[in-house]
Amino acid sequence: MILCDIGNTNAHIFKDGEFKIESLERFLVTEFSGDVHYICVNDSLRASLKVRNNFIDLEEFVGFDTPYKGMGIDRICACKSIREGVVVDAGSAITVDIMSGGKHQGGFILPGLRAYKEAYRSISLRLNLEINREVLLDVLPENTKDAISFGVLKSLILTIQHSAEGKDIYFTGGDGEYLSGFFKNAVYDKMLIFKTLQDTFNTLINKKEKYADSCTS
Amino acid sequence: MILCDIGNTNAHIFKDGEFKIESLERFLVTEFSGDVHYICVNDSLRASLKVRNNFIDLEEFVGFDTPYKGMGIDRICACKSIREGVVVDAGSAITVDIMSGGKHQGGFILPGLRAYKEAYRSISLRLNLEINREVLLDVLPENTKDAISFGVLKSLILTIQHSAEGKDIYFTGGDGEYLSGFFKNAVYDKMLIFKTLQDTFNTLINKKEKYADSCTS
Repeated sequence: MILCDIGNTNAHIFKDGEFKIESLERFLVTEFSGDVHYICVNDSLRASLKVRNNFIDLEEFVGFDTPYKGMGIDRICACKSIREGVVVDAGSAITVDIMSGGKHQGGFILPGLRAYKEAYRSISLRLNLEINREVLLDVLPENTKDAISFGVLKSLILTIQHSAEGKDIYFTGGDGEYLSGFFKNAVYDKMLIFKTLQDTFNTLINKKEKYADSCTS
Repeated sequence: MILCDIGNTNAHIFKDGEFKIESLERFLVTEFSGDVHYICVNDSLRASLKVRNNFIDLEEFVGFDTPYKGMGIDRICACKSIREGVVVDAGSAITVDIMSGGKHQGGFILPGLRAYKEAYRSISLRLNLEINREVLLDVLPENTKDAISFGVLKSLILTIQHSAEGKDIYFTGGDGEYLSGFFKNAVYDKMLIFKTLQDTFNTLINKKEKYADSCTS
């Protein structure tokens, strides 16, 4: 069984009980033996994968109850794994969603850490600096690199904390582990999206087997 | 008297008691009669203005007491106008600085509204949307445009409010008036930078006149 979550930058692959991340460039030239069950948020890439015989798009099989229109399938899968709490998927974008009693209450989107860097670069060469992940957040910065790092991290942390209102926070995604370290009531789970993919895959296989049984009986 | 604050996108001009904003393209082909006293945060542009005979750079005449290294001259001028409180210059970038007893305590930098849009655009075409300035901030968003607008505004407001700790907040810059509307303890003053420029200009002229007097007496 091969499960894939294909994003805008990387593909996350779960195969034979092992989890790995590959760049899209590398992923797209990999030859997989056996069926690949996947979700993909990149519209043009998704269309190109449809023609591959052994690639099966799981998106239409993931049911999700929400008033939100246009929610990305990766975000849906992460949320569907949690009944109660805040779900933060910190990748290219940072999506923050509130789940209550298994129902999605809505959510919002912040830029990912790399996108913040892009925002500063677009303003001025003076601000084209790496984010200092070790910046102190309890003292005011005294240089530009710390000033942008403080701006990014302080605003992310305050906004996520404010939305949580004391609820537990579940982080996933490339920067999820790092960001979860700023919160007391947080856990990091790199498999959040894959839990839903695994459930969806199991349901689909069961249905196929039942259908096959009904044809032969 | 012509005073100019030249930024990365626009030039702010104070001339004959009137204040106006011009795009850099337009500003650079304008012919000014009389001396232009200016500050400029754009390094390459600043170098090119040095050779204009009637352009006088005020930067070296603005004294400012701060432990901060590499602080932009526009930010220095805005801060120098305030003895006590938070100074927010909301332009291409949003600088947030704390002043206490006339002394700069440090500060941080958030992306400006246009730079946030650039950050989302860099992630995915799906997020390449205008920010909805009317988005409700007390209900969770249920579509992508509101989700990014909520992310931007909520994070800006929470971070500025948190840094203020009840102090008064002084907004300036292109988005200063709009953002000040989210705070109770805030005022908007489009002349914040120009107050310091005017003071610096007056001091410089007085010195020149005294020097001229001493030569003729």
